[in-house]
Amino acid sequence: MKSVKDLMMRQPDEIKGEKLYEGKAKALYRTPVDGVMLMEFKDDATAFDGKKKGTIVEKGYFNAKISAILLRYLEECGIQTHFIDQMAERYHLVSELDMLSVEVVMRNIAAGSLARRLGFEEGQVMAYPILEFYYKDDALSDPWLNASHIKAMDLATDDEVLCLEEKGRQVNEYLQRFLQPRGLQLVDFKLEFGRDSEGVLILGDEITPDTCRFWDVGSGDKLDKDRFRQDLGDVEDAYKEVLRRVSQEVPLCG
Amino acid sequence: MKSVKDLMMRQPDEIKGEKLYEGKAKALYRTPVDGVMLMEFKDDATAFDGKKKGTIVEKGYFNAKISAILLRYLEECGIQTHFIDQMAERYHLVSELDMLSVEVVMRNIAAGSLARRLGFEEGQVMAYPILEFYYKDDALSDPWLNASHIKAMDLATDDEVLCLEEKGRQVNEYLQRFLQPRGLQLVDFKLEFGRDSEGVLILGDEITPDTCRFWDVGSGDKLDKDRFRQDLGDVEDAYKEVLRRVSQEVPLCG
Repeated sequence: MKSVKDLMMRQPDEIKGEKLYEGKAKALYRTPVDGVMLMEFKDDATAFDGKKKGTIVEKGYFNAKISAILLRYLEECGIQTHFIDQMAERYHLVSELDMLSVEVVMRNIAAGSLARRLGFEEGQVMAYPILEFYYKDDALSDPWLNASHIKAMDLATDDEVLCLEEKGRQVNEYLQRFLQPRGLQLVDFKLEFGRDSEGVLILGDEITPDTCRFWDVGSGDKLDKDRFRQDLGDVEDAYKEVLRRVSQEVPLCG
Repeated sequence: MKSVKDLMMRQPDEIKGEKLYEGKAKALYRTPVDGVMLMEFKDDATAFDGKKKGTIVEKGYFNAKISAILLRYLEECGIQTHFIDQMAERYHLVSELDMLSVEVVMRNIAAGSLARRLGFEEGQVMAYPILEFYYKDDALSDPWLNASHIKAMDLATDDEVLCLEEKGRQVNEYLQRFLQPRGLQLVDFKLEFGRDSEGVLILGDEITPDTCRFWDVGSGDKLDKDRFRQDLGDVEDAYKEVLRRVSQEVPLCG
């Protein structure tokens, strides 16, 4: 097998090579094609630094589809992503990236830790979108970072930090433009980036109700992992509803 | 009384007007001269969000002198400060400022919350000086901020944020140049800034062992409020020793 086309003619189990990573929600495998990885979306879910564990039935199925739609859309908008194609129900073929240890969080509306830390009412619209960096380190519970920590810890170059800020804000604009007409308010979300073989920063990971807060535009109902975190019930229905909405045909990029 | 000169001929109690602020370590009073304030340095000390309280004998005396020396030195280096003159033993005359709710913290060596949060060994020298912003809010325990929070919360303008970053780094450079030859390693410190009547950002507050971590260059012994925080003993001696060292005649600004 030499190309993505060859891989797409097989089943995921036939092309699964070395497992490079397995986390709560995803696993990543090598494939026989150099530079192409297989990403598996799992049903497991954790919250509160892994203190809460559970399974959301069919989450992997919904997330693989949701993320494929949103990453494809971002590609159409000109944002380079690692997404190559969806395979079977729960798998993405993705480009190999050297992932940064820095997560980018964008916040349009106060919720979660932002509301708690800075005393905002949940639901308060930010006068300006908040951009935060976090250090991906489970043992340290993903502490916050700023550009000077990133520089001192050599986690990214100054130019890469500027690029992360620019891409974070662009993705936020594009996603809101896509989601709003589909009745989804983009409250906040997390992005992960990695360097390709030429050192270019590319959007990786996933964009799903696991990594975004989505609220129903009309009612404000939560349609994301907060239903699991906060025991709100109807968790599976929320993921299913997000998939239904992002699958709707609505004019793109307005 | 119309001028600072008039004020300086009186005793502090004679010119104390309305008390505008009283915190753990300082109090601030109006004076009969417009735009000139009286800042009192107290012996009280707190730590851990006020959970630990105590008194450090003669701290106010030492801090008023230490801060006067360091602020005067920074003025000589071209950094505008609120410091006008020292009055009696525990008082500064200072210019009135509209203080920002943002604190600037500079860190050259890992200690305290930086070491804990990001997993550094205490004492590890940072490859690049860390600059952090915090929101002055006791009820929220002074949470961290970045430029986007500051903008969204309208705590300072974009230009002011750039100015805070520039001044923080300049003050760090100048202070290290002053302290190192006097045997004091500047581990980290906090600065507060305010706007003068023309909207210019001016360095306010104090620069003392309450707001800086100072380690003895040779032994690494702590010569600051960590002796109080960590019950290391000889707290008063540390403040006295810092005053002795910053009072030494050593060539300025290299």
